[in-house]
Amino acid sequence: MTTGSSEPALAASPYLKPGAAGEGATIDGKAVADQIRKEISASVALMKGKHGQVPGLAVVIVGERKDSQTYVRMKRRACAEVGFRSFDCDLPGDSTQQEVLDAVAKFNANPHVHGILVQLPLPKHIDEEAVLAAISVDKDVDGFHPLNIGKLAMKGREPLFTPCTPAGCLELLDRIGADLRGKRAVVVGRSNIVGMPVAMLLLKRNATVTICHSASVDMASIVREADVVVAAAGQAQMIKGSWIKPGAIIIDVGTNPIDDASRKLGYRLVGDADFDSCKKVAGAITAVPGGVGPMTIALLLKNTLTSAERFYEGKVSGGGGGERQPQPHWSTVVLGTLAGAAVVQGMVRRVLSASGSRARH
Amino acid sequence: MTTGSSEPALAASPYLKPGAAGEGATIDGKAVADQIRKEISASVALMKGKHGQVPGLAVVIVGERKDSQTYVRMKRRACAEVGFRSFDCDLPGDSTQQEVLDAVAKFNANPHVHGILVQLPLPKHIDEEAVLAAISVDKDVDGFHPLNIGKLAMKGREPLFTPCTPAGCLELLDRIGADLRGKRAVVVGRSNIVGMPVAMLLLKRNATVTICHSASVDMASIVREADVVVAAAGQAQMIKGSWIKPGAIIIDVGTNPIDDASRKLGYRLVGDADFDSCKKVAGAITAVPGGVGPMTIALLLKNTLTSAERFYEGKVSGGGGGERQPQPHWSTVVLGTLAGAAVVQGMVRRVLSASGSRARH
Repeated sequence: MTTGSSEPALAASPYLKPGAAGEGATIDGKAVADQIRKEISASVALMKGKHGQVPGLAVVIVGERKDSQTYVRMKRRACAEVGFRSFDCDLPGDSTQQEVLDAVAKFNANPHVHGILVQLPLPKHIDEEAVLAAISVDKDVDGFHPLNIGKLAMKGREPLFTPCTPAGCLELLDRIGADLRGKRAVVVGRSNIVGMPVAMLLLKRNATVTICHSASVDMASIVREADVVVAAAGQAQMIKGSWIKPGAIIIDVGTNPIDDASRKLGYRLVGDADFDSCKKVAGAITAVPGGVGPMTIALLLKNTLTSAERFYEGKVSGGGGGERQPQPHWSTVVLGTLAGAAVVQGMVRRVLSASGSRARH
Repeated sequence: MTTGSSEPALAASPYLKPGAAGEGATIDGKAVADQIRKEISASVALMKGKHGQVPGLAVVIVGERKDSQTYVRMKRRACAEVGFRSFDCDLPGDSTQQEVLDAVAKFNANPHVHGILVQLPLPKHIDEEAVLAAISVDKDVDGFHPLNIGKLAMKGREPLFTPCTPAGCLELLDRIGADLRGKRAVVVGRSNIVGMPVAMLLLKRNATVTICHSASVDMASIVREADVVVAAAGQAQMIKGSWIKPGAIIIDVGTNPIDDASRKLGYRLVGDADFDSCKKVAGAITAVPGGVGPMTIALLLKNTLTSAERFYEGKVSGGGGGERQPQPHWSTVVLGTLAGAAVVQGMVRRVLSASGSRARH
């Protein structure tokens, strides 16, 4: 019988590096991510044997932001390492909205592409929501489409894809054997890409979930209730050891640069939790870097593999043809085959007449 | 400056009935609902003058469940009272899935219908998810479509419709002048129709939100943290006065029959909160009946009015024709004009070839 005050029991896990005397263990996200990539490589080999095909991930990047280009390079390298095909589309920073939509449409229609990423942020003059909405739900490996988020939030529904970083947080908790049922979980931050979806995932695991954010009052006392803390506020070292319930598990999603003259680049990356003071109180904590970070790309690869498996099992259309069952997933087929606003408008007219005529018969 | 321990400041409100000495006020949901219906009637009169049209609500009921028939009767009466048109479809309990889908498709395509309700529960042999997914998102006045739930959960997005009961809870809090920013809100229950969406709404109002449920441990101490409690567990009188922080606001969504020999029917309805003991501690509480109950139908009417206004302002297609802007709402048009699985399959084939050919050019 669990109690609200007991921390999640941790099984002995190869992914937990014991801390110094009296200190919590460090959760080795790098090791978990490497293991997941091994599992993915094995599945790719099987797919190649069975279907003569491998998963394909397309990345659209607009403009020359250094950080974005670094992320994209990492993603492309990760694809190569597990045997995926990469599809690149690098557009100049002054591309029009239609040019970006057309790039997405091209990948929506390409049966060798199973996942499409649009690297954010997009230049100011591009409507981000419209571009993300144009990605086929069947290829939305980021899991950010409202249809996926809706199903993530609903009991008894499953999204086609779970957002990668939140899924990575749960994967870490699973691989260290954390038992979440009935535990108090506090999520700090309510972003669409981390805070909100990770809260939904913790709820599906039967944790009692509290979401706090910039407007929350006395956050220290709220966090102190938590058996599991997911820190996703984007505030360097905001969460102090004095905020932590002894034995709690801390999953730190933050990646914040702070000045550090001792580093070649003049800065280093730290999390939203103050690692040194938190480690003294926590049962287990992820480091930054080397914690959640490596998980995000690993889960992106996993989502793309899942998508490719759906395509090659014939459960979904590759955009160029194929068949799949209509209900309840028909909506994803419809959304999943749209090739940008122009085609949408044409299709909507066809659909209107189609349903209209049906209504009259 | 608010503090975590202070209850939401309540402005003097015509909807608060003062309690006895030392007791909390009762929130008069009936009075709020009547006011909303007055506002709706006025808008209907304006619409009639401007467009010569009124909102139309269609209700599909399958089978002879007494309780369902009672709810449906109430909804139809409420429509008549505010000047809406009602569209009825009463199907026998042994109807096939296709017959139910066809009924929904007929209403999807009818430009005089702006809202479609399928009375739940459906008979066991009908796939409820498939039927709900077939309702045009543009006419989903229940707000249960995953696209609506997804946008409800996402920061910076707005659903086309907010589920009626959760919206009714927020409307009550607004009309009594409750200030939610930074307050602790505890939602008891995580259902798709009340608990989860009301938590999302409280979060959008900048409350610090905790969702607890059947697996939560020591619920009394969790509820005791709350400045605002939304009780939606479906457990008669589960929440006791001893669980309540002095001055807290209690919104009781429960409607549970308990034996009462003194009543003609041999039972009476009670909430999830033990009204008598909670009233002694709370700052304000809704009664059952007469609290949240009347709000649900009032908000259903409001959603239907909103939908009709969108149709007659030309912002959305009536299913038989019309125009609307493609992005970012095109997906709802596509979903919003499907007439059942048969048409879907035909359309999907057309769409596939459409996007396919676009890809080749």
